[in-house]
Amino acid sequence: MNRIQLAEELSVSQIVHGHWRLSDWNYSNEEVVELIEQCLELGITTFDHADIYGSYTCEPLFGQALALKPELRERMELVTKCGIVLESENRPEHQSHHYDTSKAHILKSVENSLQAFGTDYIDLLLIHRPDPLMDPREVAEAFRELKDAGKVRHFGVSNFKKHQLDMLESYLDVELVTNQIELSPYNLENIHDGTLDTCMEKRLAPMAWSPLGGGDVFTSDSERAIRLRTTLDKVAGEIGADGIDQVMYTWLLAHPAKVIPIVGSGKIERIKSAVAALDLTLSKDQWFEIYTSSQGYDIP
Amino acid sequence: MNRIQLAEELSVSQIVHGHWRLSDWNYSNEEVVELIEQCLELGITTFDHADIYGSYTCEPLFGQALALKPELRERMELVTKCGIVLESENRPEHQSHHYDTSKAHILKSVENSLQAFGTDYIDLLLIHRPDPLMDPREVAEAFRELKDAGKVRHFGVSNFKKHQLDMLESYLDVELVTNQIELSPYNLENIHDGTLDTCMEKRLAPMAWSPLGGGDVFTSDSERAIRLRTTLDKVAGEIGADGIDQVMYTWLLAHPAKVIPIVGSGKIERIKSAVAALDLTLSKDQWFEIYTSSQGYDIP
Amino acid sequence: MNRIQLAEELSVSQIVHGHWRLSDWNYSNEEVVELIEQCLELGITTFDHADIYGSYTCEPLFGQALALKPELRERMELVTKCGIVLESENRPEHQSHHYDTSKAHILKSVENSLQAFGTDYIDLLLIHRPDPLMDPREVAEAFRELKDAGKVRHFGVSNFKKHQLDMLESYLDVELVTNQIELSPYNLENIHDGTLDTCMEKRLAPMAWSPLGGGDVFTSDSERAIRLRTTLDKVAGEIGADGIDQVMYTWLLAHPAKVIPIVGSGKIERIKSAVAALDLTLSKDQWFEIYTSSQGYDIP
Repeated sequence: MNRIQLAEELSVSQIVHGHWRLSDWNYSNEEVVELIEQCLELGITTFDHADIYGSYTCEPLFGQALALKPELRERMELVTKCGIVLESENRPEHQSHHYDTSKAHILKSVENSLQAFGTDYIDLLLIHRPDPLMDPREVAEAFRELKDAGKVRHFGVSNFKKHQLDMLESYLDVELVTNQIELSPYNLENIHDGTLDTCMEKRLAPMAWSPLGGGDVFTSDSERAIRLRTTLDKVAGEIGADGIDQVMYTWLLAHPAKVIPIVGSGKIERIKSAVAALDLTLSKDQWFEIYTSSQGYDIP
Repeated sequence: MNRIQLAEELSVSQIVHGHWRLSDWNYSNEEVVELIEQCLELGITTFDHADIYGSYTCEPLFGQALALKPELRERMELVTKCGIVLESENRPEHQSHHYDTSKAHILKSVENSLQAFGTDYIDLLLIHRPDPLMDPREVAEAFRELKDAGKVRHFGVSNFKKHQLDMLESYLDVELVTNQIELSPYNLENIHDGTLDTCMEKRLAPMAWSPLGGGDVFTSDSERAIRLRTTLDKVAGEIGADGIDQVMYTWLLAHPAKVIPIVGSGKIERIKSAVAALDLTLSKDQWFEIYTSSQGYDIP
Repeated sequence: MNRIQLAEELSVSQIVHGHWRLSDWNYSNEEVVELIEQCLELGITTFDHADIYGSYTCEPLFGQALALKPELRERMELVTKCGIVLESENRPEHQSHHYDTSKAHILKSVENSLQAFGTDYIDLLLIHRPDPLMDPREVAEAFRELKDAGKVRHFGVSNFKKHQLDMLESYLDVELVTNQIELSPYNLENIHDGTLDTCMEKRLAPMAWSPLGGGDVFTSDSERAIRLRTTLDKVAGEIGADGIDQVMYTWLLAHPAKVIPIVGSGKIERIKSAVAALDLTLSKDQWFEIYTSSQGYDIP
């Protein structure tokens, strides 16, 4: 599988496996290990987490599985996130849903993640959401300390717009290597508002969360979902895709911004279907047919 | 006529003649030549085209006229555009309306334009629309090749917003010298969203398409059109303008961004009227009266 | 009181006293002097004006008071603004409400302000509003001349968005040291649109006008005002604040952008209440509770 170079010393697989629903899969540790190994066989070496996934349970579940085969750690890149505080029975000290990008919180969150994963380094740590109360000086200090300590090797952000990227970057002495954004044929916000252009300008290959539009494209009865589903179905037939999920992945992969889709399924067949999308191609006619079908109006 | 220096080796006339409706004028080649010569006499030396104008017919019509007096070529600047693909009986291979800013398409489009015009160089080539699927590396390669081959002397864009300008510029090794945008007293979008400020920041003198608001100001019964028309009529009386078209040109020319209006009329009287606007001036009171009349609310 | 360093040679007090309603207070010159001295005792050394405040009467009123104790001038920083033209009986030559950021207008406005204040320098001059007809070359010339003449020591803007800051800065050879913007728990526009981030990126400590939301939070029956008022009341109880005004100041002061609230009250008790807010602190839970209560939806 093609690899995307995010920094001199960090590459990720073109497709990333996302674990935000790991706790919903109800897998045994052995089953998680099996899924990881199947991904690695496919060339998917990058796994996406966040401290809060599964109400703070996904990281520990992954760690428990990894403990069965610790030698797998060196064959993968672990991505995780911090900065959101959730009320949870697993964090009884949390009193409200808010953001915390203070130095203390970032450092503590990383310690928790390291312990949960049972590893001594994170490959890539992301600030999960732009925080209207962010003190970029604290983020800069936290990142510097974590890098110097070898606990986090690379840094990035998620859901940031241009002004937030520009602001944070101006305080950091480490490089931001990705911006993980919502992006799919069903969600064009980050194309329309220029975020994807900004990623290209900054040479930040973006990771795409909800690359299949969060399921609405498959099931929603909204006019827009039906319209897009119909178009995707038609194109699937034209290009010989197995289903509209493959067309959506292909649509993302066709973009010159080097989009890295995060596949969040726990079923190996769905993951293989995403990988197979790497061999499909769209004509510009087809790419724009999907684009305009999604936005509901023609290009000017 | 005043000239606007777009680059060290390119200046254009303060008013540009636009040929997007050339095929509608039903002029003989001789009549087109006569119109060109009348423009040149007025000091209008810059002519604006696009591959797609008149469903791909305007460039050839202009070229057929120019063939009658090839010596005129050296007395003018030819602007044209590429990047939009239209379905057309003149391009039977096109299957849908989409954008194509690939290297191959840009090179082919320029070849077509050169052949249609019967010239061996374009003075200024614009990317017609921001393309959500643009690969800026391909644009950069195409521009570099075209410049090295002497086929295109200068490059610009049209309808670009700040993030699109920033992104594309970051990949180019040639300079963008203009951004052709919709701008008129009736259309304030590019003022309100900051595009005009960005042009000034980047020292890009913008060309203004639809400088008369596309005709609505003259004929529409909408509340907004009537309100603006009334204000323009009043100001026309105050400054001794021949009509509201002159007031609209004067309003654009008053802006410090060095706006270059594209006059799209095939009637020499209308063109002369635009040129005469160069001798009119507006007070700041009048400029803002038109501005607030258009937007429908006072400045804060 | 903490001081904010806006430039190497300019610091302002963390809280600024604003005089936009000075003419409404109906104070004698002696009473104005008393208020100034009380502010100075509290550590508030910075006073915010604009040429147009009180329909051009506030600057002269302040100057008349200052004339009673001219030695106070050296103990304060005077901020004023220019660029708006108002119809007023005090400016019979003005024919309409518009902006004027021409060199001539800026120079004349500063002369008027100097004369009205009875001082020979302004510490900080702001362009009052972004002017869609601004010629940045003229602003640059005016600023340069005023600085060279010692009439204005530092320069800034008010109500500018990123594209306007970027554009103007690109023409200036003096530094912009602040952006005075509307900011309060009731008005999040400059947070939501990225202006506050841009201030941080540019290291421009922003001054906040209407830091109490212009009064609506106290009196409006709108659902939003009631919701925010209820939250502020609750938090006031939690942190031991004297009233919701203190909570609003504390909310602003908690932001890492080093926000400088402009307190516009003529009553010393209200000013003291603002100063007392400097000793209060909010938890992140409380800051976000106010933020989401204001915007009416949770953070994602």
